[in-house]
Amino acid sequence: DVSRDLDESLVQDFLAEVDNKQIEGFLRDLTKVPHMATTAGDEATVQYMLQRWQDPESGLDRAWIEQYLVYLSFPDPKKPNKVTVVAPNTTVLHTAREREKSYGPDQDDPEVVQPYAAYSPAGTQQGKLVYANQGKPSDYMLLNKTLDLRGTIAITRYGGAGRADKAINAAPYGVVGVLVYTDPLDINDGLMSDANETYPHSWYMPPSGVERGSFQTDYGDMLTPYLAAKEGTYRIPVESITGIPPIPIQPIGFEDAYVLISQLGGESAPTNWQGGFNCTYNYGGPGFKPASEFNDSAVKLEVFNYAELRNSSNVMGIIRGSVEPDRYVIYGNHRDSWVHGAIDPSSGTSVMLEVSRVLGRMLKQGRWRPRRSIIFGSWGAEEFGLIGSAEYTEQYYTKLSERTVAYINVDIAVFANATLKASGMPSLQNLIFTAAKQVKAPGLDSTTVYDNWLRYSNRTSPAHGTVPRVGYLSGAGSDYAAFVHYLGITSMDLSYTYDRTKTKARIYPAYHTAYDTFDYAARFIDPGFTSHQAVARTAGNVLLRLADSLLLPLNCSDYAESLESYLATALELYQTSGAPPSISIEPLKSAVGLFRSAATQLDQFIKSSDLANEIPLKVRRINDQLMLLDRAFLDPQAFPEKYGFRHVIWASSSAGNATFPGFADAFARASSSGLAGDWAKAHHQLSILSQAIEGAAHTLLDVI
Amino acid sequence: DVSRDLDESLVQDFLAEVDNKQIEGFLRDLTKVPHMATTAGDEATVQYMLQRWQDPESGLDRAWIEQYLVYLSFPDPKKPNKVTVVAPNTTVLHTAREREKSYGPDQDDPEVVQPYAAYSPAGTQQGKLVYANQGKPSDYMLLNKTLDLRGTIAITRYGGAGRADKAINAAPYGVVGVLVYTDPLDINDGLMSDANETYPHSWYMPPSGVERGSFQTDYGDMLTPYLAAKEGTYRIPVESITGIPPIPIQPIGFEDAYVLISQLGGESAPTNWQGGFNCTYNYGGPGFKPASEFNDSAVKLEVFNYAELRNSSNVMGIIRGSVEPDRYVIYGNHRDSWVHGAIDPSSGTSVMLEVSRVLGRMLKQGRWRPRRSIIFGSWGAEEFGLIGSAEYTEQYYTKLSERTVAYINVDIAVFANATLKASGMPSLQNLIFTAAKQVKAPGLDSTTVYDNWLRYSNRTSPAHGTVPRVGYLSGAGSDYAAFVHYLGITSMDLSYTYDRTKTKARIYPAYHTAYDTFDYAARFIDPGFTSHQAVARTAGNVLLRLADSLLLPLNCSDYAESLESYLATALELYQTSGAPPSISIEPLKSAVGLFRSAATQLDQFIKSSDLANEIPLKVRRINDQLMLLDRAFLDPQAFPEKYGFRHVIWASSSAGNATFPGFADAFARASSSGLAGDWAKAHHQLSILSQAIEGAAHTLLDVI
Ligand SMILES: [Ca+2]
Ligand SMILES: [Ca+2]
Ligand SMILES: [Zn+2]
Ligand SMILES: [Zn+2]
Ligand SMILES: [Zn+2]
Ligand SMILES: [Zn+2]
Repeated sequence: DVSRDLDESLVQDFLAEVDNKQIEGFLRDLTKVPHMATTAGDEATVQYMLQRWQDPESGLDRAWIEQYLVYLSFPDPKKPNKVTVVAPNTTVLHTAREREKSYGPDQDDPEVVQPYAAYSPAGTQQGKLVYANQGKPSDYMLLNKTLDLRGTIAITRYGGAGRADKAINAAPYGVVGVLVYTDPLDINDGLMSDANETYPHSWYMPPSGVERGSFQTDYGDMLTPYLAAKEGTYRIPVESITGIPPIPIQPIGFEDAYVLISQLGGESAPTNWQGGFNCTYNYGGPGFKPASEFNDSAVKLEVFNYAELRNSSNVMGIIRGSVEPDRYVIYGNHRDSWVHGAIDPSSGTSVMLEVSRVLGRMLKQGRWRPRRSIIFGSWGAEEFGLIGSAEYTEQYYTKLSERTVAYINVDIAVFANATLKASGMPSLQNLIFTAAKQVKAPGLDSTTVYDNWLRYSNRTSPAHGTVPRVGYLSGAGSDYAAFVHYLGITSMDLSYTYDRTKTKARIYPAYHTAYDTFDYAARFIDPGFTSHQAVARTAGNVLLRLADSLLLPLNCSDYAESLESYLATALELYQTSGAPPSISIEPLKSAVGLFRSAATQLDQFIKSSDLANEIPLKVRRINDQLMLLDRAFLDPQAFPEKYGFRHVIWASSSAGNATFPGFADAFARASSSGLAGDWAKAHHQLSILSQAIEGAAHTLLDVI
Repeated sequence: DVSRDLDESLVQDFLAEVDNKQIEGFLRDLTKVPHMATTAGDEATVQYMLQRWQDPESGLDRAWIEQYLVYLSFPDPKKPNKVTVVAPNTTVLHTAREREKSYGPDQDDPEVVQPYAAYSPAGTQQGKLVYANQGKPSDYMLLNKTLDLRGTIAITRYGGAGRADKAINAAPYGVVGVLVYTDPLDINDGLMSDANETYPHSWYMPPSGVERGSFQTDYGDMLTPYLAAKEGTYRIPVESITGIPPIPIQPIGFEDAYVLISQLGGESAPTNWQGGFNCTYNYGGPGFKPASEFNDSAVKLEVFNYAELRNSSNVMGIIRGSVEPDRYVIYGNHRDSWVHGAIDPSSGTSVMLEVSRVLGRMLKQGRWRPRRSIIFGSWGAEEFGLIGSAEYTEQYYTKLSERTVAYINVDIAVFANATLKASGMPSLQNLIFTAAKQVKAPGLDSTTVYDNWLRYSNRTSPAHGTVPRVGYLSGAGSDYAAFVHYLGITSMDLSYTYDRTKTKARIYPAYHTAYDTFDYAARFIDPGFTSHQAVARTAGNVLLRLADSLLLPLNCSDYAESLESYLATALELYQTSGAPPSISIEPLKSAVGLFRSAATQLDQFIKSSDLANEIPLKVRRINDQLMLLDRAFLDPQAFPEKYGFRHVIWASSSAGNATFPGFADAFARASSSGLAGDWAKAHHQLSILSQAIEGAAHTLLDVI
């Protein structure tokens, strides 16, 4: 039936059938062994996904593998990376752990990869140690004021700057190698002892825990920008790669970091550089204190990483739409982890498998077929830089941008079990609210996920009053990046997260360590798996509504509200920027005004229509306007210096203002330099932005 | 009615109502005075178009003006540009005409603009004259072998190189100024005398005739790349403009060119440099023959052009679609001319007005409303670089790319009255054939436009046998450029043209001169206006079919045929290129293969469907695939050095092979230089191309 709308009783069936025990079972299966991208463990999860999605009782219409030949970086198992303290007489005074300490069979698995910094160059460097705080440009600048950094090794803590940036920022000062560790202050609320405080006694990171990670700046396979990484695809020369560490870098545990930092000489670092150790964090002489046994010793960093092309798999599954098969709702998560990855990403993968299992059963039992097509994506090699999802969007750019209604990302489904967290385009806000109101909050019988969320995080909307706060997807933190920034697809990212009054941890403490295991998830993150269940119910409800609603549940007036809030900040910034009078802000004001009136007009047109009883091309026309709204904000020339960023509203920004990113960065730069050329660039950004918003308004305005 | 298809009887009504007398009347009105862009004459045509399109009996639903503030270049009426021969003692021995000779009131009009090279810099230059053939790179290179070109003035003939290129190519050799003229061999089949051979006795160019033109490389307003040229829009600094003459250049008549060339000294130029004058074309000493009265004299070039921002208008008119208002068929032509512009562009404008008049009457009488929306565009400032149409596509980029089914361009409607000429995407070929089969050939009662065309220009299609030859729109010769290359909209350009056995003229001889008048059109180009009528019938028939057919009349298998023909040439090129074995051609072969099978599959799906009786979303889905096919070939990064070129199949190419342009140029360069970096670029182009063709295939393949 062409005019078929969402069936609310079917939504209730779906919610009822989502089973926490099933999720637990999926998680147990997925985390049996480490499954770093392209390893045998990863291949096992590929087969596992395929089996589930091809299951005759609860599978999808079709499931298959898509492979890409991508550039990955690994440590050499035969020559482990090493960090040592070496005396002038070459005696080794201290050796950092090569593996994390074992508390059970998971850590004993020989497939646990040594902690390393993916894409760090190989090399041996030795030098006096300095402490460089978070490795931000301002950190090295300050350090350089009193110390000659040439030939030094810098130790930095995670946070404040991107992983690769800690080395990229260091190199210009002559630093030859970098160490990075997680400070207990930043991850463990200060706790440090594995005798009783850290895992396996709690969710906190044990002293030997090390956050692995990809040390790159741009997302996607590095050798094949804008091209799917297939066998014969052109690859840029390895020497042309940008955004990776120019000098060796290696992550270590805070146990070893303490040994080094507590012995550092030199002046005491500023208060905001101090961490959780019971010692003063000094800059370093450079090097260690005269009184230390390490006096005059150097730190030696040996990195044996190598990079090579590997075949990485996405597993894809589809349910074909009955009425509009040419409209896609995509639901995805990565499948690869650093080690066992129970939380990252398998919590999300388990949730996705439960959503697809319940929908697959409804499908196979003949109870349901969606109005629009549903695509599930289990992306490969996300940990190395969102590679699987990025290559997928490059290969299928045309059909995805022509037909995709929305993308739902659930990576880490449960960081903690306090409250829902959602980020996405403003047009999705109301849909997420609707879905969250139909789901019971875990552990709170009479409260909905929505009401619980409202208590933890809210804001006042001019149109709706107090509502939960939905974040924006301005960065490239998970696989939504290519969908948002490259394709301009309306996207969201969902999870359950912390009570921020109870922890200051940067992220859940086992993140990217050998302790992110089923045991950890089941005992400390979500005992009973009810938060997983709530996320599955919420995300699945959103998915069903996107796939089945006659009118797409996307609200363009909520988009206008966000643009107006950005505009208000932009106007303040403009006023105080000292912009020359030749640069008028009027085109931006008028573009946002046009967008608002277009949104109002479309909403009234929808309200005044009886869509189920008018010609089916009318609702299709409106749905096309709503679907293409985010596409209208794309400008491939807006950010020539940011790879894969084309959406002018949600790009990343360094200026730190809640406003249009290109505008914010360009005005901040011009305002600070006062150079005519920088003002010209600011004016250019203003015109790009105004035209894009006007273009988006034209997408919403009456079609002719 | 949602399933309403094209009404053939309505097509017949349309054809019957297209009136040659009406076209003649429109042309007479439009060409009363010169109407160069933004002049009072242009403003009069703006009002004229508005009146016709707002006429209560035969107008459209709505018509309005869109203005852009664009950068135009003009001669100074108070200080006319001058070309003189100056003796060493400063005596002026010869002065070139400042105006073309008058043969009637049209040439006497004070609004006839002095012949000039728009965007030539102002400046006075004096130097010894040399003859540089067509001003191609190879021409100056040859000349430079025997002559020191520093400080010289070069005289060149039109043809072989773009207008601006004649100066751009000259400057590196130290040439300080350039003259350009139209050689009688190239335009007049050798005839030269206005006593009996040229206009007003025939269509040939009189001796004083001068082709004006825009001397630029990129299309659109030069100061606002990719941004609509509105009041507050960012403009690049004038110094940053590229692609315009770096040294003064001025066009002159062949009468004056003869005076100069016939006196040139030096060696005799090669045979293919010789033109139609009854003298040997020498290189120049540099300078004139010792025996000449000009011996030792220099040529002095004084250019007083100035550039400024002017408001240029597009006139827009629409007929709202009844069933799919959100699908557009666009029909356009520029309105501005250099002088009276009877042929260029008013022949096309008269045809457009007749098409809109007949459709407007059917509309106002309640006999018809199209299924899809129709947009008419009367573009401004085309002569300065397709400016009005380019700015329009920049401003309305989003909605035009979301919704436009096709663009029909009819600029010069009638070059001559021998045969139809058509260029466009291969998917439109069959539609043009269908339309042309329903129109009688002018002056040939029992022959159709199609049959007549087939006699003049044909080719053998693997699928269809002998068919008329439809050209490709690879360049930027008229307002289709932004639609084809920037927006990726399926486009065509239609006209009536020469019997090439009867003339070798580069173009109709009055092109861009003061002789392109109503008198010229009515007496020499199309007496009785029956060729205009045939073009109006053919173009209008195409328009009606695009607007009213239930299934879009776009054939994707014909596109596959063109790709296969390009592939065959590419394979030959690849074989002989000496490409290293690491660059495989297989991805391109397999992409074209995938495209063919996708096209076959879609055609079979269409054939097996009963679209009028199935759900209306099915035909919409197929129509979307067909509409978006050309969009799928866009890659904004494919041609970083070519402004506004994004369609990987139809971009301009310098390699001169009938194959994929980026591939052809890159392989030619690499093959010739042998440099590894050039081979890398060739490989990159191959990957871009293969991925784009695959993407287009995905647009055609079953939607999920
Ligand atoms: Ca890639
Ligand atoms: Ca522009
Ligand atoms: Zn993750
Ligand atoms: Zn991760
Ligand atoms: Zn023209
Ligand atoms: Zn012209």
